[in-house]
Amino acid sequence: MVKGIKRFFLEVAYDGTAYHGWQIQPNAVSVQEKLDYALGTLLREEVATLGAGRTDTGVHAKQLYVHFDSDNASLINSPDRFIHSLNALLPFDIAVLRLLEVASGSHARFDATERSYEYHIHFTKDPFLINKSWLLRDRLNVQRLNEAARLLVGKKDFGCFSKSNTQVFTNICTIKEAQWVEIGEKLVFHITADRFLRNMVRAIVGTLLEVGAKGKPISYVEEVLASRDRSKAGTSVPAHGLYLTKIKYPYIDPLKNNIERY
Amino acid sequence: MVKGIKRFFLEVAYDGTAYHGWQIQPNAVSVQEKLDYALGTLLREEVATLGAGRTDTGVHAKQLYVHFDSDNASLINSPDRFIHSLNALLPFDIAVLRLLEVASGSHARFDATERSYEYHIHFTKDPFLINKSWLLRDRLNVQRLNEAARLLVGKKDFGCFSKSNTQVFTNICTIKEAQWVEIGEKLVFHITADRFLRNMVRAIVGTLLEVGAKGKPISYVEEVLASRDRSKAGTSVPAHGLYLTKIKYPYIDPLKNNIERY
Repeated sequence: MVKGIKRFFLEVAYDGTAYHGWQIQPNAVSVQEKLDYALGTLLREEVATLGAGRTDTGVHAKQLYVHFDSDNASLINSPDRFIHSLNALLPFDIAVLRLLEVASGSHARFDATERSYEYHIHFTKDPFLINKSWLLRDRLNVQRLNEAARLLVGKKDFGCFSKSNTQVFTNICTIKEAQWVEIGEKLVFHITADRFLRNMVRAIVGTLLEVGAKGKPISYVEEVLASRDRSKAGTSVPAHGLYLTKIKYPYIDPLKNNIERY
Repeated sequence: MVKGIKRFFLEVAYDGTAYHGWQIQPNAVSVQEKLDYALGTLLREEVATLGAGRTDTGVHAKQLYVHFDSDNASLINSPDRFIHSLNALLPFDIAVLRLLEVASGSHARFDATERSYEYHIHFTKDPFLINKSWLLRDRLNVQRLNEAARLLVGKKDFGCFSKSNTQVFTNICTIKEAQWVEIGEKLVFHITADRFLRNMVRAIVGTLLEVGAKGKPISYVEEVLASRDRSKAGTSVPAHGLYLTKIKYPYIDPLKNNIERY
């Protein structure tokens, strides 16, 4: 058995309700901390995962990819069994779905070409949607919401939707999809971009609701975008309706399962 | 305003995770207790609801009808506003959906002609289904499950699926539907009958799984039924996959909303 460092991608999903977001931090429970601990236990070494992105407190992930390196990859005799053991060690609200061995230069954050989010809204009290969707009393005009959303699509400066004091060098993002879809009793906003700024999706949803619920004209979205000023945009909507849903890599086929790609 | 006792039906839904079932009992938190308290607060009198049936600890309800009487019905100026206030008083995991004024002799339990349940099973760890579906590792044969389920349909003695020491006079029930349906990653068992015995659905699911997962012959279901002996049937499946989903009354049209029928 050849000894050496190997790099792996792990597909993760979690209900963010109980966590102070993805990222490890002092004095607060994070998803990353739970995952690193479980991986370290199985691989008998310190493991430090790196995620494709972060999620804030209370935000959920249906799909997040993270990478990690291991000196003890020989302990992984089968990806399926490893995932089974990992899931048994992890809390109920964190699941690992796939393990892939990747080339050593592969990077979960820098190689991701697309990220997708969903924002879930429902309109009557539903005991099965607690912390999983935002209960909103307003009547929404879905057509207007979609007209406003279409103005976001393209390569633009989205500084108006970024948390101030972040350390990014540019606010330019390319939004590929921004669409509201009615699914049963729910209204779900889908958005896909090459990258997102901090707090961007929740600020976008809040801004679109100004048009779709509060009667502002569609042109309000254009004004907000042109201003590049966060204080001009709508209020951020609550975290518990937000889901990170997809991360895309040029070298990962989402339709094939882990066994083939391992 | 004419003073006098009026009878109401209330449509209720709840996530049963935090409750020791529907029914009020000493030293344990029940859904009924929370509902009676909220109703009593709004109507400024002691209110005692009576449910169409009971659910056990951890069992959910997407629809349960209950009735209650009130001397202070004049406090209900609009059903919509009353329901809104009631939902604001109730915990997040209990919702009231509709209020109907009914004839004084109407009875939520005795007048119900049909009850429906669902049992939800999923097969890979899913952080969003905690306490909402049963995670089962076995591979299931859906066709065999449905062949076995069909044997239950009809008017029969279901004593084999009843908790012992119950006080019912007869174990005869008429099952109108018993069917397994694949919905996405889930397998859902649907069952409808005029009445159910205590613990009956969970014992039925456990028995069908003996055929669909553990390789017993279809005829095993017939043997269990003929035995009328609970010890011959399969193990009861866990409560958290079970949902009471529908109660039918000859005088309630499920498709019309409460405003018209009030």
